[in-house]
Amino acid sequence: MITYADRMKNVSGEALNDILKYSSDPSIISFSLGSPAKEVYPVETIKNIINDIMNKDAAKILSYGQSEGYMPLREAYLNHIAHPKGIDASIENVIITTGATQGIDLISQTFINPGDVVLVESPSFLTSLQVFLKYGAILVPVIMDDHGIIPELLEDLIKVHNPKILYTIPTFQNPSGKTLTEERRKDIAQIASKYNLLVIEDDPYCDLRYRGEHIPPIKSFDKTGNVILTNSFSKILAPGLRVGTIVADSKINEALVLAKGGTDTNTTILSQAICAEFLNGGYLPAHLNDMVPVYLERLESMLYCLDKYFPKSCKYTIPEGGLFVWIEMPHEIDTGKLLESAANEHKVSYVPGYPFFINPDDGKHSLRLNFSSNTPDRIEEGIKRLGAFFHSIINE
Amino acid sequence: MITYADRMKNVSGEALNDILKYSSDPSIISFSLGSPAKEVYPVETIKNIINDIMNKDAAKILSYGQSEGYMPLREAYLNHIAHPKGIDASIENVIITTGATQGIDLISQTFINPGDVVLVESPSFLTSLQVFLKYGAILVPVIMDDHGIIPELLEDLIKVHNPKILYTIPTFQNPSGKTLTEERRKDIAQIASKYNLLVIEDDPYCDLRYRGEHIPPIKSFDKTGNVILTNSFSKILAPGLRVGTIVADSKINEALVLAKGGTDTNTTILSQAICAEFLNGGYLPAHLNDMVPVYLERLESMLYCLDKYFPKSCKYTIPEGGLFVWIEMPHEIDTGKLLESAANEHKVSYVPGYPFFINPDDGKHSLRLNFSSNTPDRIEEGIKRLGAFFHSIINE
Repeated sequence: MITYADRMKNVSGEALNDILKYSSDPSIISFSLGSPAKEVYPVETIKNIINDIMNKDAAKILSYGQSEGYMPLREAYLNHIAHPKGIDASIENVIITTGATQGIDLISQTFINPGDVVLVESPSFLTSLQVFLKYGAILVPVIMDDHGIIPELLEDLIKVHNPKILYTIPTFQNPSGKTLTEERRKDIAQIASKYNLLVIEDDPYCDLRYRGEHIPPIKSFDKTGNVILTNSFSKILAPGLRVGTIVADSKINEALVLAKGGTDTNTTILSQAICAEFLNGGYLPAHLNDMVPVYLERLESMLYCLDKYFPKSCKYTIPEGGLFVWIEMPHEIDTGKLLESAANEHKVSYVPGYPFFINPDDGKHSLRLNFSSNTPDRIEEGIKRLGAFFHSIINE
Repeated sequence: MITYADRMKNVSGEALNDILKYSSDPSIISFSLGSPAKEVYPVETIKNIINDIMNKDAAKILSYGQSEGYMPLREAYLNHIAHPKGIDASIENVIITTGATQGIDLISQTFINPGDVVLVESPSFLTSLQVFLKYGAILVPVIMDDHGIIPELLEDLIKVHNPKILYTIPTFQNPSGKTLTEERRKDIAQIASKYNLLVIEDDPYCDLRYRGEHIPPIKSFDKTGNVILTNSFSKILAPGLRVGTIVADSKINEALVLAKGGTDTNTTILSQAICAEFLNGGYLPAHLNDMVPVYLERLESMLYCLDKYFPKSCKYTIPEGGLFVWIEMPHEIDTGKLLESAANEHKVSYVPGYPFFINPDDGKHSLRLNFSSNTPDRIEEGIKRLGAFFHSIINE
């Protein structure tokens, strides 16, 4: 056997395997994946767009494209997403990636030397943690309160650990569902400039707001180019297209484009052209209007059922948007150990908390539930099963 | 400015920038890109396939997929491409990548530690060289004769350098156009087993054969799982779709899938479904029948014009397939230095030889010409211009 590179020792597939295994079994009600509701995909719009662009631009769509992305999509993203969010950016600040995950990977390739410190919210998105570890980062957790990262504590951590990067998911955080306040976003942009910290602002859920007011991204308060913003079409259109965006300083983008050229040359042009037309045709606002009530109903259904069926000693977040509810269980519960029984015997699955933490023990008693991808009926049935299972263990 | 990771110091965008810059200017006849002929894209077939799959499977196509690839494509690739080429493989041996470049990147991530030796043909594909360097490989050149790598010399190099990987493009090599004989393929498979060497067999051009007999891939002679084969839909269907394949030992594939999960989650499902239907619908053989005469005419046109317009002191390969003719010029010519004048004054572009070599000086007098993406008329005009330019410098 030929030995693997050392970087692969840092990467574990265990949690992801569990997520996928129990999500592909149709007899199991899965609260695991961060998937959109299949019922609200704008299928007819996408079909019409494809017909249109294939009639108009087939040769361009089928050929190689630029690594920085398909120009009509870069422009459409600026006009319809970045500028309305208050981001001062022009075309050289925008590149297109094969999903937001590729953005995290390219940024990591480009900036992380083995031994560099990356600050991450605790808990944080498990795939991103794995990517940072693959490139040899030392991860340091940042504690959050109900409103996300606390700027004063962040500054203290910077002084102690001299980090290169802060990774944050500021809106409807994955997995906690928490949202960073506007005031704190301003503070974090300032702190980044002051300490020459690179902030990766991973913001795929920001448009999935069901209550409250939209908050501008940290990037909109960035005056020094220290913030890199990643957005995604996975949650606002369709994850199967694999299209994400990066907004960054133009010098940084030159390096990221170089990394991308050696990674997948360019993102699928057909997907990029669909996203461009979706924005330019003005379909996004209407689609969000269709999605929001469906997702809100599912969120409320989940919260109602948690209240009704779960042991009273379980605490859960009440997010204003996004896809996830985060649950903290009493200490006798080990969610990682219970997953197999939950899935195989009780036919319901979730993501245990441990892979979201640098120290897996910190996530032993917590779990993440997705509410967007099941109907209210399935949510009730699934939470009822899970609640009964947990009751049987807690014996309240 | 936040400093980049050390691995980026090994990556240069200079050559690629030149290629792209002069290829996007419509006033310049470009022989630079490795693009298919736009005229022969099977546009109507692709449109019909898209309509079909969007009517049948929209929700599946728009959702997340498995990192290892879309099951119908993995099966179709086995049935229509791998098995007919004599490869003994089953479903767990096949994964789908976002173009063959991603395959090279995933294999490099997974296997290359800084300081590992990778043997590469001299010259070799410039993007792959950059990817190996990014992960810290030490590249060692393998000299080729007219039939590719010489197995005896390979064995000598293995004894001296103890390499982990051999990277080879065995069929219509990029950039040289050379093809490895069947006998040598068998020898290389045996050498790989004997020395526990990992062979990356990058074979995107194998189906673009215009003369002579098809030769089975090295992978078909591999009995120990030491060979990883990458193929691509970029040359046989459309590069804009970004779909490639890997055939490897199932244990190796587990690691590659893990790396892929943290790179782009999965390849665009729409692209994968198009490729699957293209194979299952039986369209590939007919499409190759359409392409081959077009490409052969362009190849012959280029060879005829090189003979007619180029200085007699220039030597060129006569490939039996693929996309490229490789030219060696007299030593007073520095193709890298002349590119700017060729493009800006004479309105014709090529890829200079230097980025294809580990030591750029070795490629100073050579250049690569693509013949697939221009009509015979444009080829004649372009080669005439380039020939006149070189005549003016050589003064034969």
